[in-house]
Amino acid sequence: MILKLNDKYLKKFISEHEYECIAPMVTVADKMLREKSGLGNSFLGWMDLPENYDKKEFERIKIAAKRIQADCDAFIVIGIGGSYLGTRAIVDFLNSVERQGNGKYPEIYYAGCNISAASLNDLLYICENKNVCINVISKSGTTTEPAVAFRILRAFLEKKYGVEEANKRIYVTTDKARGTLKSFATQQGYETFVIPDDVGGRFSVLTAVGLLPVAVAGIDIDALMQGANDARIAYSSADLNKNDAYKYAAMRNILYRKGKSVELLVGYEPFVGTLQEWWKQLFGESEGKDGKGIFPASVIFSTDLHSLGQYIQEGERILFETVLSVNDTKSMYTIPYDEANIDGLNFLAGRDINELKQIAMRATQLAHIDGGVPNIHIELEERSAYCLGYLIYFFELACAMSGYLLGVNPFDQPGVEAYKKNMFAMLSKPGYEELRKALEERNI
Amino acid sequence: MILKLNDKYLKKFISEHEYECIAPMVTVADKMLREKSGLGNSFLGWMDLPENYDKKEFERIKIAAKRIQADCDAFIVIGIGGSYLGTRAIVDFLNSVERQGNGKYPEIYYAGCNISAASLNDLLYICENKNVCINVISKSGTTTEPAVAFRILRAFLEKKYGVEEANKRIYVTTDKARGTLKSFATQQGYETFVIPDDVGGRFSVLTAVGLLPVAVAGIDIDALMQGANDARIAYSSADLNKNDAYKYAAMRNILYRKGKSVELLVGYEPFVGTLQEWWKQLFGESEGKDGKGIFPASVIFSTDLHSLGQYIQEGERILFETVLSVNDTKSMYTIPYDEANIDGLNFLAGRDINELKQIAMRATQLAHIDGGVPNIHIELEERSAYCLGYLIYFFELACAMSGYLLGVNPFDQPGVEAYKKNMFAMLSKPGYEELRKALEERNI
Repeated sequence: MILKLNDKYLKKFISEHEYECIAPMVTVADKMLREKSGLGNSFLGWMDLPENYDKKEFERIKIAAKRIQADCDAFIVIGIGGSYLGTRAIVDFLNSVERQGNGKYPEIYYAGCNISAASLNDLLYICENKNVCINVISKSGTTTEPAVAFRILRAFLEKKYGVEEANKRIYVTTDKARGTLKSFATQQGYETFVIPDDVGGRFSVLTAVGLLPVAVAGIDIDALMQGANDARIAYSSADLNKNDAYKYAAMRNILYRKGKSVELLVGYEPFVGTLQEWWKQLFGESEGKDGKGIFPASVIFSTDLHSLGQYIQEGERILFETVLSVNDTKSMYTIPYDEANIDGLNFLAGRDINELKQIAMRATQLAHIDGGVPNIHIELEERSAYCLGYLIYFFELACAMSGYLLGVNPFDQPGVEAYKKNMFAMLSKPGYEELRKALEERNI
Repeated sequence: MILKLNDKYLKKFISEHEYECIAPMVTVADKMLREKSGLGNSFLGWMDLPENYDKKEFERIKIAAKRIQADCDAFIVIGIGGSYLGTRAIVDFLNSVERQGNGKYPEIYYAGCNISAASLNDLLYICENKNVCINVISKSGTTTEPAVAFRILRAFLEKKYGVEEANKRIYVTTDKARGTLKSFATQQGYETFVIPDDVGGRFSVLTAVGLLPVAVAGIDIDALMQGANDARIAYSSADLNKNDAYKYAAMRNILYRKGKSVELLVGYEPFVGTLQEWWKQLFGESEGKDGKGIFPASVIFSTDLHSLGQYIQEGERILFETVLSVNDTKSMYTIPYDEANIDGLNFLAGRDINELKQIAMRATQLAHIDGGVPNIHIELEERSAYCLGYLIYFFELACAMSGYLLGVNPFDQPGVEAYKKNMFAMLSKPGYEELRKALEERNI
């Protein structure tokens, strides 16, 4: 098995006939996806991407990655939301400190994902004595956060290397033809990569958006895509009972209708922490609309058993957990025998930490279901690019299905504009004069 | 002002008479706290701590910190839950990369807060060529995660330096008299510090638990304690209208009763990220019991406006936000003018990033209240040890009040034991034979 969806800790909370009831809805939603007949159908490019990706660009990404590896020791990804969350998730999931820190591959840094002078100063301090390349990722080139960071980091590079050399160190991932960033890149001679028109930001990790930086980090992007494609094939049935991505979507939907409004994605390894952040955007932005949606949150156990554990065990019963475990993490450590035995733990001596973790996990799952918290369990075979690609596709497909079952358009994000409009008005951006006046008249 | 609790974005959601209704309850709960007459009253040591702390130990902490700074470049804090979250919160909040990375102070690392061979291997890899001291923090010395880490890291130190020198590099923070860790420390000659009996883990950051490692990180612990003590004095009234810590507790409680089950602590700077984790334990573990409690979650804006922003703006209306902003972050950066103006943002040129952030914040608050999300706003004057100490006390007192208003014992955590009992039984720990049998008989 590569990925196993385990429902044994869920049986107490969902009866078999509930799956029967929702199965026809799943079939209909599958049709909406496959026949592109549902809302948001112009953003379904991610579905076939692992098979139909641009093979020429893919080779160009590998060549660029090799050049970047030779040219720099700090590679800065400039992007916000879907333009960096997938990259960070993959890099952190797969690269140990040893692998990242051994100098073979550049360290990956992130900019343009906040409005923080403190973060920017940290980054510029780090980069002062390093060789730097940057990858600016933006469909339009006009999103405020990455645009501001690009202004600053481009100036930094041009000062450090001169314009001509800086131009060779700037890589742009953007629209294939439109937008000022694309035309500027052409004019300057930056190498460019494409954000496809039919793939939204949060589904874009397996396009050049994610592939270029993760390749730079030394990750095997062939294996990543192979995993995603094998998942695409494995999850092609319209039948709930033969498609675990759909089954996960159905489980979530059933639990939500029972009043479970918060889903906790539970990891047992710190290296899944940023994958959880990617997952939060994927599901939260796809489903949180029209006054509906499961609120996505995350914890790392056993760490947070000593923090949010109390709430999960005994607080308000609005939660369910989705445990994401990795069977083979490629790391092991035997607990040593200790003559003094001050902690009374010699009964653990000689056992591997992974065994202890597996037992802690099962102990926790039993405790939590006894406490009334439904548990879904996703088991991933190993910490590898192939398995991670598989998991990414699993989540993307499950998310699309889940959105249609919920009754929303999973592919838009109209609510993201609200703060931006206010902000542009307050900043006196041309074109927002009326809103500015209206905001000034509000007595808050 | 050091800390301002701003309710202007809340007026639409809470009427004045609601505060009037809850004010008498606040007065009663204040009495329970000050007269130590409520549930959990044997754990109120944190209340007077900023004034009545052990001055001799405090001086000893400063001396030890100086010695540690001279002896090592990697200082490993071994602890879980309240034994490390406060330390990490303070270090990350106050120390920029430049300050941490300039070699003047040791880097602070954390162990024993998970069951992850991958994390342990990362840490041992990092420490291979560094000089190391460790601080094991555990009341009993028998909590599994830190105990296992201490076994391994003690063996690592003894191998690296020999037993005698290793003993000088091990610092223990534990019970003042009881427990196997205390006796072992005495036997080995480790320097020890005290976890007071009347201060629970999640309220322990201003004891030696937090003070030693943050002093090692070069943070001014006098200023930290001064801030906490000034907050203690400022928040000494039983009157809701004269005590903003109580007012924050009342706001939360009123919103919870209106169906707002999830509180999002919103930061606008990445450096507040681990403070949010400390806050989650403080409130989640204090309130999440008896089937009640606000679920604590967190986001960093503007980062997560491009992730959870959509949900917050338009998803299920179960959320309220508490925005924690820092007026003076001690960092600035002017947005440069760009001849090409490809992003069309030249109207921002010459303005500081902090100004942009302030405007984004107000824009977001207005958008979110228009979307039906109540906003509490806590403004902190500056990024300093003094202000952070003040904020810590504010949150601790608010949490205690909030727990009593909710009708729970804010100072226990009975639910944390559930998974541990299962785990010990499954691990065949002596004394858990019956539970082991019962678990084996369950058909899951």
